[in-house]
Amino acid sequence: MKKSIAPENLIGQAIRQRRIELDWSQEGLAFECGLHRTYIGAVERGEKNLTLKNLVKIAYAMDTTASSLMNAAGL
Amino acid sequence: MKKSIAPENLIGQAIRQRRIELDWSQEGLAFECGLHRTYIGAVERGEKNLTLKNLVKIAYAMDTTASSLMNAAGL
Repeated sequence: MKKSIAPENLIGQAIRQRRIELDWSQEGLAFECGLHRTYIGAVERGEKNLTLKNLVKIAYAMDTTASSLMNAAGL
Repeated sequence: MKKSIAPENLIGQAIRQRRIELDWSQEGLAFECGLHRTYIGAVERGEKNLTLKNLVKIAYAMDTTASSLMNAAGL
């Protein structure tokens, strides 16, 4: 793990990267996982201390797993 | 993932399993990660919707990673 970067930032980057791989907008991801578009934006910018439930929701919506996202984030 | 079991329960079981591997008490883990003993107990019982920051703290205290714990939890 890159200890100098906060976990929220690392996971936010991993979520954004996966979303872009899928060629989805933040609105599209928000719709798929049942969370608000502004919340997704804040998560991607590392402004939210994401909960386990929401991380799992986001991962499944993007057809991946929470552990894969965490691993991509180096966490 | 076992979809019938809530993510909080799955991660709680994975944390407990790792703690027992280390032969640590809940008090010992609480001390190492700077969280309260009763909070650790509630996390292990699946009663807390753990945040990313606390999951990372707990994982590092037990010399593992958040992604390993998530993976062990099948999440």
